[in-house]
Amino acid sequence: MQELEERIRRQGTVKPGNVLKVDAFLNHQCDVRLFDHMGAEWARLFAGHQIDKILTIEASGIGIACMAARHFGDVPVVFAKKTQSINLDGDQYTTRIYSFTKQREYPVIVAKRFLKEGEHVLILDDFLAKGNALHGLIDICHDAKVVIEGIGIAVEKGFQEGGRTLRKEGYNLKSLAIVESMDPDQGTITFAPNPA
Amino acid sequence: MQELEERIRRQGTVKPGNVLKVDAFLNHQCDVRLFDHMGAEWARLFAGHQIDKILTIEASGIGIACMAARHFGDVPVVFAKKTQSINLDGDQYTTRIYSFTKQREYPVIVAKRFLKEGEHVLILDDFLAKGNALHGLIDICHDAKVVIEGIGIAVEKGFQEGGRTLRKEGYNLKSLAIVESMDPDQGTITFAPNPA
Repeated sequence: MQELEERIRRQGTVKPGNVLKVDAFLNHQCDVRLFDHMGAEWARLFAGHQIDKILTIEASGIGIACMAARHFGDVPVVFAKKTQSINLDGDQYTTRIYSFTKQREYPVIVAKRFLKEGEHVLILDDFLAKGNALHGLIDICHDAKVVIEGIGIAVEKGFQEGGRTLRKEGYNLKSLAIVESMDPDQGTITFAPNPA
Repeated sequence: MQELEERIRRQGTVKPGNVLKVDAFLNHQCDVRLFDHMGAEWARLFAGHQIDKILTIEASGIGIACMAARHFGDVPVVFAKKTQSINLDGDQYTTRIYSFTKQREYPVIVAKRFLKEGEHVLILDDFLAKGNALHGLIDICHDAKVVIEGIGIAVEKGFQEGGRTLRKEGYNLKSLAIVESMDPDQGTITFAPNPA
């Protein structure tokens, strides 16, 4: 998606250790007009698919998922929660996700009543690198016996294995921008030709 | 806001300890059409105010803030983050917020470059009880020397002190639904006449 690639080029910053910061418009400050355009693009890419619900994970997934839902007939958005709160019932799907950014594993839950067997689900998230968060969401989908219609990602790090693995596993994965390489010294970012 | 009150009556559940669960439409599963109507209502309530930016806090604030931003001319949404990530610069505003739900204090940060001196900010969040999270966001606004134009809340627990304190402090606080009392045995919820 050209608009997203241009924003990453203009406002993204490359840090040592393959870190790409896009917090100026994606995951700390949010450009809701861009989010809206991203939602329209996912709607185009997943046209013809039955989508009953969008599943994402807190925190950065929530804004893009809510904006995208408008383009899928206002389907409900469910976000997986990262810690057990004493407000929650015991009746929940649980998995554990390892975060390289935060360097720790954390439990992730979705209340069972918000994912019903046979529902058709679109998974959305802001980033895909090694794919740990997505595999956690997929685990929950399998537990809930829902149909994963597709996975939409804003920024995929194409040089890490997450996207390759998910495509090999047969998931209909659409990333709006795929970073092929980054140079922290020059600050340059190269995108893969988008397969979408 | 009648639509929100009706949803709380229909889908909210009252638990012992003054816990009101609205996770079916507000903070676990999200009804984006309702969020859109809430955004329109805040736009009506804060009409005439200059709003350059919306500030909220992860996670449940993000969805409603993004949807609301559309009604304020697509202003940027900034969400305060609850833990320090190694992806973040040192150049940030920091405060600490005590969560009664999670029974612990956690650091909250906003990158300094996303709140600029003199900007006019609308603070939005899903819940107001004792007001700890809001006072944390207000601290950050004061550090950043931004102008707090108003505070918009989805559900205020009117029987706890947060709203009273903030109004006494002079903040232009607009809550879309104010719960006056709840009865966990009967499951009944009574709303205060809305001052908005």
